[in-house]
Amino acid sequence: MRETLEENPFMTDEDLADQFSVSIQTIRLDRLELAIPELRERIKGVAKKQLDDVKALSPEEVIGEIIDLQLDERAISILDVRIEHVFARTGIARGHHLFAQANSLAVAIINDELALTQKATIRFTRQVQAGERVIAKASVKGTEKERTTVEVKSYVDKELVFSGEFIMFRTNERETKRRETE
Amino acid sequence: MRETLEENPFMTDEDLADQFSVSIQTIRLDRLELAIPELRERIKGVAKKQLDDVKALSPEEVIGEIIDLQLDERAISILDVRIEHVFARTGIARGHHLFAQANSLAVAIINDELALTQKATIRFTRQVQAGERVIAKASVKGTEKERTTVEVKSYVDKELVFSGEFIMFRTNERETKRRETE
Repeated sequence: MRETLEENPFMTDEDLADQFSVSIQTIRLDRLELAIPELRERIKGVAKKQLDDVKALSPEEVIGEIIDLQLDERAISILDVRIEHVFARTGIARGHHLFAQANSLAVAIINDELALTQKATIRFTRQVQAGERVIAKASVKGTEKERTTVEVKSYVDKELVFSGEFIMFRTNERETKRRETE
Repeated sequence: MRETLEENPFMTDEDLADQFSVSIQTIRLDRLELAIPELRERIKGVAKKQLDDVKALSPEEVIGEIIDLQLDERAISILDVRIEHVFARTGIARGHHLFAQANSLAVAIINDELALTQKATIRFTRQVQAGERVIAKASVKGTEKERTTVEVKSYVDKELVFSGEFIMFRTNERETKRRETE
């Protein structure tokens, strides 16, 4: 189990139970015995390492929790929708929170000191309720001069709840970086 | 001066000084004498009345302060950008705050109990710094079936800093309303 988790730290107890054809209870007991933390804690360990890579904003400025980050390639974050994120009357998550999660991920993915959103086209495709966990997946679609296009798709379970295309302006500070590493 | 302000409660002391060809100092003294509150306080009085009209969300859920609202026509809100709205490294306002101001105004303008953002195309046209005041102006461009298009333009002084087109989904609850007023 330790090896399996080293390869894929994001496996849930359920996934592990499936893989080893045992019950979830067995997996939990084995984890306790081997002192392997639960998924949430494992993710945090990975996330801490990933966050050190973020360049364009301070890690604590990211809305949601980054669990995967390959600069200028892809990034994933999770946001647990709580009561303070929803409209009082309807219990539906307010759009700007889903936007903030996606937008800050689009900033975090940029491998430059400065990244600013220039334009965004976004769609809210399914209502999100308090208690649901939104997983945002960002990927870089291309860079032309100082403009990088980042696509973000956010899911609850496997259902698409939000999608957006972000055009990010970035400063080309490669010169500065080169000097720093010399 | 009292008459002038009744017609247009949003005039600044500077506007009044211009209109009456006197110094700003004179206007201030006159205001004190006539017990006319300053612009900010006058706006709050108007805003309180306007807010009672908001239907699709609770007034305290609006990001920024609504100072004008004609349901299904136009709305204006102001947001004072503070240190908690900006990126620590650059001092530039984070996009999701400008988005939240515009989006909640697009919700507030809808004359229905339920208004949800379906799609938005937004542009950030100039960086905003802490200490600046953003004035967002929303106007309804049209309604087709249950979709209303709202255009929002946000300014600092007279410079456009943000623009967005929001496609809002609304429930047609006119039946319910009719019953309530009978």
